Amino acid sequence: MKGIKIFSPATVANLACGFDVIGLALDFPKDEIFLYKSNNPGIRIHRIHRSSLPNDPMKNSAFVALQYLLKKYKQKQKFDEKKIGFEIELIKNISPGSGIGSSAASAAGVVYGANILLEKPFSAIQLIRFAMEGERVASGTAHADNVSPAIMGGITLIRSYQPLDIIKIHTPNELWVSIIHPQIEVRTSDARKILKEKIFMKDAIRQWGNVGALIAGLYREDYGLISRSLEDVIVEPIRSMLIPAFYELQVRCKKIGALGGGISGSGPSVFMLSKGNYTAKKVTEVMNQVYSPLQVDYKTYTSPINSKGIKWIQIL
Amino acid sequence: MKGIKIFSPATVANLACGFDVIGLALDFPKDEIFLYKSNNPGIRIHRIHRSSLPNDPMKNSAFVALQYLLKKYKQKQKFDEKKIGFEIELIKNISPGSGIGSSAASAAGVVYGANILLEKPFSAIQLIRFAMEGERVASGTAHADNVSPAIMGGITLIRSYQPLDIIKIHTPNELWVSIIHPQIEVRTSDARKILKEKIFMKDAIRQWGNVGALIAGLYREDYGLISRSLEDVIVEPIRSMLIPAFYELQVRCKKIGALGGGISGSGPSVFMLSKGNYTAKKVTEVMNQVYSPLQVDYKTYTSPINSKGIKWIQIL
Repeated sequence: MKGIKIFSPATVANLACGFDVIGLALDFPKDEIFLYKSNNPGIRIHRIHRSSLPNDPMKNSAFVALQYLLKKYKQKQKFDEKKIGFEIELIKNISPGSGIGSSAASAAGVVYGANILLEKPFSAIQLIRFAMEGERVASGTAHADNVSPAIMGGITLIRSYQPLDIIKIHTPNELWVSIIHPQIEVRTSDARKILKEKIFMKDAIRQWGNVGALIAGLYREDYGLISRSLEDVIVEPIRSMLIPAFYELQVRCKKIGALGGGISGSGPSVFMLSKGNYTAKKVTEVMNQVYSPLQVDYKTYTSPINSKGIKWIQIL
Repeated sequence: MKGIKIFSPATVANLACGFDVIGLALDFPKDEIFLYKSNNPGIRIHRIHRSSLPNDPMKNSAFVALQYLLKKYKQKQKFDEKKIGFEIELIKNISPGSGIGSSAASAAGVVYGANILLEKPFSAIQLIRFAMEGERVASGTAHADNVSPAIMGGITLIRSYQPLDIIKIHTPNELWVSIIHPQIEVRTSDARKILKEKIFMKDAIRQWGNVGALIAGLYREDYGLISRSLEDVIVEPIRSMLIPAFYELQVRCKKIGALGGGISGSGPSVFMLSKGNYTAKKVTEVMNQVYSPLQVDYKTYTSPINSKGIKWIQIL
């Protein structure tokens, strides 16, 4: 096998109370990546469709992540080092800066694909580590919030970074996601800066009560409990200021049946979870209604949770 | 039915990362309570064995909790109000001040028993609320950490106090608990005072990652994951100073096979979880070995998790 087409999903990080630890993968939107193994050493990105990503490859999350993978691969397989290269073509369906894991989709997609073309020398956790290096150049921190659900699928929990310990959480079948992406710029680094270094213990306790309850709700498939637990008392009150009509979205989506939601990643996208496709579509429609009178361009999506994560087909 | 004997269990609150939210019930030790319904209005505590609890009934958690229950009962059943009273006899096998829910066992036991004698007018969550009022007089705060597992059994999670929302978490069958109770005084109010009002966001994130992972580990019956998640980066580093040989206990118990543990409640008791009775007994033995050279009296216990909570038999 020399060439594959990879479908790398959008992801929602910072799942309400699960700030910095809980994320999930979507079925839609997804990036398409054509990846070819060649005997020509090095990594070449030939074209990036539908996006103006950095021309400097060292600022491109896919390039950097794959470079890390290759470095580790060369340490493992001492003899092939001069004979392995990759050619990449990216079709970006996930807008950069949307808050639904655009850089993660590129980084996770290429390392996942390269692992297949190299006959799987690496574990999922190793692939996550490589993809995190892509995130470092894209967002300034080597976070695993988006690359973990992209690579593992479903809902993931980062228990710890030192050591890296990531758990795939049971995903109830009927859990659907509605997303609205207001096309305003919220830079991840700015969204990080407005957070406080210290927080009140009482708020932190409420947050970890909710995190525990959300995980229990997912395992029990208890949608009422999931709904009650989707509360973020720490980050949302600060970051939601950056997002037009955030509380109107929250209130109206819940009124129509959404379980709850919050800011996706560091925004500006907002996500809502629902039980079932029917409710999720109604929730997305309400998102449209809230935003259509505003002077802000936006896109909306409705997707089930993608339990598998990255998918691929052989093309060469 | 006019009289019952109640077995009200010791409980471990502040389960490592689950500070203030996760607790569990033990099979052993347990208080024994004789409770009789009488036509003589009021509550009378006739004898308290093996303990020097406050003579002032308004400082006794059982008295106060039952008083709240009766007040609510009278609001519900307008006609019986002058005909209902209770006689209580307490055998305290759980030492007050031990950190394994002594006041909770009294408060939870009497309201649970009274509910049976009154033909169950109240739900578990209502009983927890009454028992919390007992905790208020015993420890200064109306916390639910111990009374919840005592009343609901197993492992419980307090998602929220406002509104009160408590979830019973799946308990793996083979989970056992070792306890050492060093007989030194650590007052709950003092243990609270040394905690900081604000904590670092990064520590809080690590804590809620662990809380989520612990809950996932319990549902998956993944003992490795439970073990990795039993980490408290916020409270234990401060409170453990109050407990002799705390880190020696941690290190040596884990070395012999304990999954992990921490301070029970606000101390001074220390708990360790293990997979299976055999390991738990070895862990308790190590606790004995650590403490036997010290100039501190102590007691140790080995118990499975009590999935049922309070038990009772009819005696009259």
